Amino acid sequence: MDRLTIIKVGGKVVEDTQQLNLLLDQFNRFSGNKILVHGGGNTATEVAGKLGIETELVDGRRITSKSMLDVVTMVYGGLVNKKIVAGLQARGCNAIGLTGADLNLISAIKRPAGEIDYGFVGDVNDVNSRELRLMLNENVVPVVAPLTHDGKGSLLNTNADTIAAELAIELSGHYSTFLFYCFDKPGVLLDPDDDSKIIYELQAEQFNDYKQKGVISTGMLPKLDNGFRAKRNGVKEVLITNTENLSSGRGTRLV
Amino acid sequence: MDRLTIIKVGGKVVEDTQQLNLLLDQFNRFSGNKILVHGGGNTATEVAGKLGIETELVDGRRITSKSMLDVVTMVYGGLVNKKIVAGLQARGCNAIGLTGADLNLISAIKRPAGEIDYGFVGDVNDVNSRELRLMLNENVVPVVAPLTHDGKGSLLNTNADTIAAELAIELSGHYSTFLFYCFDKPGVLLDPDDDSKIIYELQAEQFNDYKQKGVISTGMLPKLDNGFRAKRNGVKEVLITNTENLSSGRGTRLV
Repeated sequence: MDRLTIIKVGGKVVEDTQQLNLLLDQFNRFSGNKILVHGGGNTATEVAGKLGIETELVDGRRITSKSMLDVVTMVYGGLVNKKIVAGLQARGCNAIGLTGADLNLISAIKRPAGEIDYGFVGDVNDVNSRELRLMLNENVVPVVAPLTHDGKGSLLNTNADTIAAELAIELSGHYSTFLFYCFDKPGVLLDPDDDSKIIYELQAEQFNDYKQKGVISTGMLPKLDNGFRAKRNGVKEVLITNTENLSSGRGTRLV
Repeated sequence: MDRLTIIKVGGKVVEDTQQLNLLLDQFNRFSGNKILVHGGGNTATEVAGKLGIETELVDGRRITSKSMLDVVTMVYGGLVNKKIVAGLQARGCNAIGLTGADLNLISAIKRPAGEIDYGFVGDVNDVNSRELRLMLNENVVPVVAPLTHDGKGSLLNTNADTIAAELAIELSGHYSTFLFYCFDKPGVLLDPDDDSKIIYELQAEQFNDYKQKGVISTGMLPKLDNGFRAKRNGVKEVLITNTENLSSGRGTRLV
């Protein structure tokens, strides 16, 4: 099977021009099939604030009212996504920006209101990679924003770590798939304040142990839960790292 | 050659939910290859206003500062585009949203500052339809936002009427291309206040005559200039109409 690299980059990386340029340079160097999945939460919070819409997060997840859905559609699907696409095109990389609505790539179900009503947040229902794979065959590079759709005309806000994992799982049936979570730390750290304390290999049992003991910070948990799920479902390799170490492959490898 | 229908819809049509739904129903009924090109100027003005960015128009063209470029990228490339895509997917139409940066579809040159400095406004340089045509062959329906890129990493704001004409001209080498300009009047009117006074056929000489006499309102001029240019450059048919008459083909035909 051909190799496919899926790189998920967090908001902090794509929202700073200098960091974004470094990332795009690094990303551009990966040969073969590749997909970039991005966040953009900080910009969404900033734009929402300017529009007088308050941001409410529960465990890092955004409560998405109708007006907040418009904001994330503008920011993720428009501003952040198209800046990345234009930046990659400038580097000779034939990028295309997508949300889960485009090509019916990722359909989702609006999360039912339980104790918390997350609003227009979608839990992934199905990934349809047919047209995406046709584009990969033409050396097109998809850039995917963290939005899905309900198939009834509404977009939904979906966590970018989850989107990256779901794409990786679906595509691992067609490619030897490598999933990289790229954020602002060089890997999963034993001590969040010491960047040298990288856990180079993390096993599922170890992870559960660390989770119980509270060693791994809460912000890392969705990334790792998604990463291990991807690993269990056919994804060849999952690496958690930062932009600087993206090409060297240094970071935390899930095993 | 296969038939291709390109429909350009103005801001007023796509910005009102009821009108948008009517349009998407009509658009969905067109069989064969089709492309939707949209505007979104009123929403851009509204969002800019809320963000404290003043809108300045010269002859209906938006002066596009750096912050206004971010607004139109959010509104055209994100909000309006993805709402249309989700609406079409809900109707079983496999839509994909694109700007000129995606797939390097439309590259442009930043308009040099003359008497007026339009800022980040792009004049179309080149249309690359290769990947677009591959998608049309797969029954994918492109939805194109009025944004281009300079190939150096910057998006540019480009008039939607022009985008529709440029796409139609490029694609008329591959398809028997029909270009529809869909706006809020049933066609070009001899009297702008009387919707029954439709000019059903408009010849280039007649148009020049009307233009000199001031019979045709200034807002129509870019649409007609683009329409006649398309007609001269291989586009099979150019029709100016509204949503209600889209399927009947009633309206102003350029001849």
